[in-house]
Amino acid sequence: MKKEPGKTVNLAFVGLGKRGLSLLNLVLVAMDDIKVTALCDVYQDRTDRAADLVEEKTKERPFTTLDYKELLDRKDIDAVIVPSSWETHFDICLDFMKAGKYVASEVGGANSVEQCWDLVKTYEKTGTPAMILENCCYGKTELTVLNMIKQGVFGELIHAQGGYQHDLRTEVATGVEKRHYRLDNYKHRNGDLYPTHELGPIAKWLSVNRGNRMTYLCSMASKTAGITDWIRKNRGPDYDNANFKFALGDVVTTMIKCAHGETILLVHDTSLPRPYSRGNRLQGTNAIWMEDKWAFCIDGVSPVNKWGEYRWESFDDYYEKYEHPLWTWYRQRGLIGGHDGMDYLTLRAFLEAVKNGTDTPIDAYDMATWMSITCLSEQSVAMGGHPVPIPDFTNGRWMHREPAIPGRYCLDEICGPEYFEI
Amino acid sequence: MKKEPGKTVNLAFVGLGKRGLSLLNLVLVAMDDIKVTALCDVYQDRTDRAADLVEEKTKERPFTTLDYKELLDRKDIDAVIVPSSWETHFDICLDFMKAGKYVASEVGGANSVEQCWDLVKTYEKTGTPAMILENCCYGKTELTVLNMIKQGVFGELIHAQGGYQHDLRTEVATGVEKRHYRLDNYKHRNGDLYPTHELGPIAKWLSVNRGNRMTYLCSMASKTAGITDWIRKNRGPDYDNANFKFALGDVVTTMIKCAHGETILLVHDTSLPRPYSRGNRLQGTNAIWMEDKWAFCIDGVSPVNKWGEYRWESFDDYYEKYEHPLWTWYRQRGLIGGHDGMDYLTLRAFLEAVKNGTDTPIDAYDMATWMSITCLSEQSVAMGGHPVPIPDFTNGRWMHREPAIPGRYCLDEICGPEYFEI
Repeated sequence: MKKEPGKTVNLAFVGLGKRGLSLLNLVLVAMDDIKVTALCDVYQDRTDRAADLVEEKTKERPFTTLDYKELLDRKDIDAVIVPSSWETHFDICLDFMKAGKYVASEVGGANSVEQCWDLVKTYEKTGTPAMILENCCYGKTELTVLNMIKQGVFGELIHAQGGYQHDLRTEVATGVEKRHYRLDNYKHRNGDLYPTHELGPIAKWLSVNRGNRMTYLCSMASKTAGITDWIRKNRGPDYDNANFKFALGDVVTTMIKCAHGETILLVHDTSLPRPYSRGNRLQGTNAIWMEDKWAFCIDGVSPVNKWGEYRWESFDDYYEKYEHPLWTWYRQRGLIGGHDGMDYLTLRAFLEAVKNGTDTPIDAYDMATWMSITCLSEQSVAMGGHPVPIPDFTNGRWMHREPAIPGRYCLDEICGPEYFEI
Repeated sequence: MKKEPGKTVNLAFVGLGKRGLSLLNLVLVAMDDIKVTALCDVYQDRTDRAADLVEEKTKERPFTTLDYKELLDRKDIDAVIVPSSWETHFDICLDFMKAGKYVASEVGGANSVEQCWDLVKTYEKTGTPAMILENCCYGKTELTVLNMIKQGVFGELIHAQGGYQHDLRTEVATGVEKRHYRLDNYKHRNGDLYPTHELGPIAKWLSVNRGNRMTYLCSMASKTAGITDWIRKNRGPDYDNANFKFALGDVVTTMIKCAHGETILLVHDTSLPRPYSRGNRLQGTNAIWMEDKWAFCIDGVSPVNKWGEYRWESFDDYYEKYEHPLWTWYRQRGLIGGHDGMDYLTLRAFLEAVKNGTDTPIDAYDMATWMSITCLSEQSVAMGGHPVPIPDFTNGRWMHREPAIPGRYCLDEICGPEYFEI
């Protein structure tokens, strides 16, 4: 699997909806050392459009197929990006791992604990690395906070919060006409369907799977009303699913306990009107940070009011002072691509691992652990908030694994022979 | 029990620490129609100081005692304010109710579900009204939001959040020298010790006990580190409790489900450095409000960004537009007393009930229900987040009780013969 540095990586995509196309574009525009050799989706118009795009940029038309299994044995594929529907992530990734090809899954949650175990066992048996492309781990804000933690600013960590809080009513409600995989999940499942945007960074902050682990969770779902309300208001009573009783609660709250006593609070909130927010919050014995308020308070330093009680400070000064070295470098060279530049860093972290034949910075254990929260949350909701244990997918290795947060990231190819510990 | 309007109310205080003294002062400064006839505390220096204060203002020295039972049969007491330690609230209130005297307890949580039932049964048997002095129900912000709900701005209500988030490290850590009752609770109990400042207003928003009710909860507590950390940093290793292992987790999170599917999230966070915040948030099918960010978003009205996603608006304009009528009146006449004026409204709501011989706007059922959350939360934490049922203290009456939110409040004495539905 080890690639010579500098050599081109042959890359395939399985899943070419909106997200897949966006990642493909990023590769085509910004990565000369990556060659897109194969494209797959279940819809031919998508593979056609994507192949056109590649051909337009590179003058070479990649292989296309509607069946990803046709890619498994191809010699011109080193690694595969999997931005397919949520429920297909595991099957596709596992098949490629067995075929010896690095895989990077887009984010989402698991449907069963068993498929998370299958991922880990396949990884252990084949030695083929996998990665979940959790771009928020590479967000500037999330990495700044990670840097502050490492420098001791928060003291002992106690509690973290976050959420996927995104008004997706249009996307879900129009899911039939837009062929969006979210729709079926919202119709039939009730739990935190999409936890990793906030949980990934939090897991890295709290050293989950590297000296710490999540032990159990409790989830609660509110009533469901938002999607139906949107359909009736915007499309009328005869539109798709206008009379379907959606299973997913509009707001799903999940509490998680860690082995070292920290608590994590997650909120899934995508069926009601609201601005986008990951709503992060972190508290330690020495400081508190709130993303929504963009505010910070540090013991013994922040100003006090007339009663001697702390007042919030703007996070701006700290944001500048504690910028992560990776971001300082990245900002100076100019950001690339979508989602404020973090997509590029994430995809590049995966591709650097492929090029260097190393493991991924967000590995199969992380992927299994983070994605398992979805089905565990469903179980807890189904049992009225009953606590559900979170498996130790490392089988004890978490106690000894090196605290690489979120892993050793080689930037050889893009900024000279420097290594950043991110 | 019915008092003639305009007649003076004879009032006693049991509990004259910082809070009791503050309420006593409010009565002395702002209420000509209330006569303070008796004072009680377990510490004589407190009763002496309070009696001096009354004598200085009124030229009459009230009766004082260290044993509240000496007050039970006195004819010169119509009503009693009980700002005593948390664990004595119920015993004192029940004894006065049996003696036919209106009681108003300061806020806090229950130690057992049984004492909540005792309160309700005593109320039903004696007919003597009780009230929990939850001043946040009368906060300007909370009443503005209530007014918005009543005017349909939020649409169907789905989810509410709030917290008691207050850096009390100094108060708790110096509890021995300051004789503060919080200390023992923090040393020995683990749960949401103080839920009503956020839960009271939320319960009124969601019509709890008047067409809705809370059915069960799950609680999770983080590790405990904050108080000990403060003691060691600020008082050194030989100070009181420097080596005591405090039971209370630094951050306690509680999820509550309502009969009509709404969820409530509570956070108790008082052992770490932070600015004060009740962190309220309310979401419906039509709008979301966030107190910490002082932001609002309403479907079809708020501005959108270039991707068509909502942007936050400042809450300022809505805050002015939807001011509650009670607050319009109160603001125009000039606010009185502490906590941004809400203490006065709360205490006055109780005293108006006494004067008119009516029930209290936050009654024995509300008091039992809200205070029960503390011991139920302890049970859930002790069982690793296991769901715990919340009793129906109304025994079914909640389905039919008039939706007075938070009750009919007579302002005859202070602003003419008008009644405000608040």
